[in-house]
Amino acid sequence: MTVQKTSADLYQDYVEKMQKIADVRNAMSVLGWDQETYLPPAGATFRGRQLTTLSTIAHELFADESLGGLLRELGNRTDLSAIQQKNVALSLEDYEKNRKYPAAFVAEMSSATNAAYHAWIKARKENNFAVFEPLLAKMVDLKKREADILGYTGHPYDALLNEYERGADVQMLDTIFRDVKNSLLPLLQQIALRDVPDRKFLARHYPKDQQWEFGLGILRSMGYDFNAGRQDVSEHPFTTSFNPRDVRVTTRIDEQDLGNMTWSCIHEGGHALYEQGLPAEEYGLPCGEAASLGIHESQSRLWENNVGRSLIFWQHHYGNLQGIFRSNLLAVPLQNFYKAINLVQPSLIRTEADELTYHFHVMIRYEIEKGLLDGSLQTKDLRDIWNQYYLDYLQVKVPDDLRGVLQDIHWSHGSFGYFPTYSLGSFYAAQLYNTAVKQVPGLENAIASGNYNTLLEWLRNNIHRYGRFYTSNELCEKVTGEKLSFKHFLAYAEKKYGGIYELNEQ
Amino acid sequence: MTVQKTSADLYQDYVEKMQKIADVRNAMSVLGWDQETYLPPAGATFRGRQLTTLSTIAHELFADESLGGLLRELGNRTDLSAIQQKNVALSLEDYEKNRKYPAAFVAEMSSATNAAYHAWIKARKENNFAVFEPLLAKMVDLKKREADILGYTGHPYDALLNEYERGADVQMLDTIFRDVKNSLLPLLQQIALRDVPDRKFLARHYPKDQQWEFGLGILRSMGYDFNAGRQDVSEHPFTTSFNPRDVRVTTRIDEQDLGNMTWSCIHEGGHALYEQGLPAEEYGLPCGEAASLGIHESQSRLWENNVGRSLIFWQHHYGNLQGIFRSNLLAVPLQNFYKAINLVQPSLIRTEADELTYHFHVMIRYEIEKGLLDGSLQTKDLRDIWNQYYLDYLQVKVPDDLRGVLQDIHWSHGSFGYFPTYSLGSFYAAQLYNTAVKQVPGLENAIASGNYNTLLEWLRNNIHRYGRFYTSNELCEKVTGEKLSFKHFLAYAEKKYGGIYELNEQ
Repeated sequence: MTVQKTSADLYQDYVEKMQKIADVRNAMSVLGWDQETYLPPAGATFRGRQLTTLSTIAHELFADESLGGLLRELGNRTDLSAIQQKNVALSLEDYEKNRKYPAAFVAEMSSATNAAYHAWIKARKENNFAVFEPLLAKMVDLKKREADILGYTGHPYDALLNEYERGADVQMLDTIFRDVKNSLLPLLQQIALRDVPDRKFLARHYPKDQQWEFGLGILRSMGYDFNAGRQDVSEHPFTTSFNPRDVRVTTRIDEQDLGNMTWSCIHEGGHALYEQGLPAEEYGLPCGEAASLGIHESQSRLWENNVGRSLIFWQHHYGNLQGIFRSNLLAVPLQNFYKAINLVQPSLIRTEADELTYHFHVMIRYEIEKGLLDGSLQTKDLRDIWNQYYLDYLQVKVPDDLRGVLQDIHWSHGSFGYFPTYSLGSFYAAQLYNTAVKQVPGLENAIASGNYNTLLEWLRNNIHRYGRFYTSNELCEKVTGEKLSFKHFLAYAEKKYGGIYELNEQ
Repeated sequence: MTVQKTSADLYQDYVEKMQKIADVRNAMSVLGWDQETYLPPAGATFRGRQLTTLSTIAHELFADESLGGLLRELGNRTDLSAIQQKNVALSLEDYEKNRKYPAAFVAEMSSATNAAYHAWIKARKENNFAVFEPLLAKMVDLKKREADILGYTGHPYDALLNEYERGADVQMLDTIFRDVKNSLLPLLQQIALRDVPDRKFLARHYPKDQQWEFGLGILRSMGYDFNAGRQDVSEHPFTTSFNPRDVRVTTRIDEQDLGNMTWSCIHEGGHALYEQGLPAEEYGLPCGEAASLGIHESQSRLWENNVGRSLIFWQHHYGNLQGIFRSNLLAVPLQNFYKAINLVQPSLIRTEADELTYHFHVMIRYEIEKGLLDGSLQTKDLRDIWNQYYLDYLQVKVPDDLRGVLQDIHWSHGSFGYFPTYSLGSFYAAQLYNTAVKQVPGLENAIASGNYNTLLEWLRNNIHRYGRFYTSNELCEKVTGEKLSFKHFLAYAEKKYGGIYELNEQ
């Protein structure tokens, strides 16, 4: 006689399987963190194979038939809580998506990615896109096939987007980027007519140790919990989480550029606060994970730009900063500092762009990816297309491939559909921040006095604690009362930069 | 028709399975290293479960029937190289030993260890052995059962010893420790009649950063490869290896005690040189692993004591050390420094003991473990037995349990049979060093001039490169021409301490 298992028992089985997978994936994250921070050079090769082994194990565990059976059985149970049901539904969706990939395809993609990455490194060394192009072409071909495997109703790009931002599609992005073009270009043109604020003082000598201490202080003031995290140094700043009680950030310090460390601390701090705010009791389950890349980026950008590049933020912190770097900053008034850290100027490199021109960098990549996916663009023409776009939208002439089409690592990794989430992050950030200011009385007064508790609490209650329970669209609508709309970012930009560049006083 | 696989193909299958297991185990080591160096406090709980999951996975992979079948099949093949045959034979031995443990026993041991460890922590807090005793009794019971599971012909302790030191047994250790007693006690009695050298200057203020730099310099001079390793700080110094290209050491720094950092650097450096010298091409296989704990310890102690506490070592380094810590050491002659770092004085704590009295600490533990295992001693009497032994052998009165029977973590971990390997390490070290000096012309001249290349090369060629190919006994006989004999350590001790304490001049 077979006794039917209770839903509670079945759910417990499911939780155990998922947490086991999470343990393996989080172990990979520890190895990855170590790789970027402390790994001795000669250890790289063996570390690579250790990561591959863990990845294979995690993949096998997640592709296990018995997990699928369990998920389908649980999907029929009606006596689960809403969160439990959501976990099961999302896990089943992930499971079935994962099972769609034929093993041969996974292997082909893995070796193509490896080859593309090394070709990209080589192409950068030789400053020659032609070295990378054939492997990029192969990658595009594979991504087209991946879109077919995953399935889509509209544009093939939708299938890839969905990997990073559930529910986003080409239709939504076309609308957003049309708004970007129509409304930001005129603003940039106005700004271009104004004098460029002085920012030379940001490039004076800022000793490493003092920068480091200042950055830690900022993180602490934001509410980042050093009991459940730490900061280290790496070549490229990043945030990684092994569980909500161990969320780590890294930064880099350039003694000739105060901004490098400052913005990475605040940006990664924003990502980390999100991860520290995810519900620990949902460890390993969808509701314990971030909603999407766009929402993740909204948290980092809200802190970096809406808070960290605001006048009220520096009203509180600037005196301290001046005290630390007296010879560099004592003669620089707050207003000049504020203008310098918000300089808007078209440039070549996405990661160095200001918060307005940044979105043209993303738009260019979005248009290119879309075109490659639907076949209207070819990789062999990519250098020319890239350079033309930069001339058209940013009025800059790309001098070489290194500062042009070879600047990002993403395509060599096979990450197509990732770039748009950066812009979505900024736009979500503006809309969320706007809502927070409306809903929380005295929020900006608190920020002006260096108190971020109320803001963090609002983010915890409205965003962090839900994990993946809502999609980014749903979450946005629930919290702000409307779908994502570019108008909030535009209003923010017009107000802020109108003030900085005195645009209404001409 | 089934085509029989070639031995080369079968061996390749075996290598892949073993390397996969090694990858998981080494990932655990990375997580363990992180736990002791950089883990934020709140991350400990999740880290614990991540380690348990990886441990379970590694165990399952190693217990897999298909691996057993493969090993047995390979065991019948005669067309394998000597190293391949040895790998297969040792893996099969490990595999069968691993399969002997019933799952219920493993679970019981795991929960008993956990309980014992926490009771030990609590007992130390309360400075009361009685808190730990019942859990230790349970542990002893389990270790007796483990000895039965593993099987033995002589003393049940042999089965446990064999886990750490293949081929060692009670008969061998009884002989060794009888020699220790008979010949070291008289030496200690002679030393006790002499004046105690001054060592107060070692407890002056030694700033952290300068100690750190000095330690790194010593490691570099020993030949430790920082391209394939690194040093960090942890509460208890240790060496860990993720593969021969990534072998890490840790140290601790006490600003009031120069010795703490110095000896941990050299000791762990010796362990690390062994791991860096293991054959990388045997990754994951027995011949890529250390021969035994005793041989491992022989490497650390050879560097720490035979080299690092020698007069010729400091003839080279002392000037530099004086230069760094001028106000502390400039007025201290080399001879006084040399005497101070070789002070012999009975004491309460094993880890702080000098290189002579140390072996009585080990002998006491050995006698106790043996008695517990064969039932001639009971845990309830352990405090009294311990204190009596310390009075008898070391003439020290144990003031409390913290400085007595509760000082070591080993029993709470279930590590019975581990302690003797510390002494074996010292005795192997003396015998090996003796042989090296005989075989390599000018070895001590090289050491006196700060050149350790020749010594390291000799260790690489005679010890490191063999991995587990030979047991410690076999290796010792092969390299030194005879079995392990205490006489080499005794000759070393008599010569060194006879000089320091001017024993022949009375």
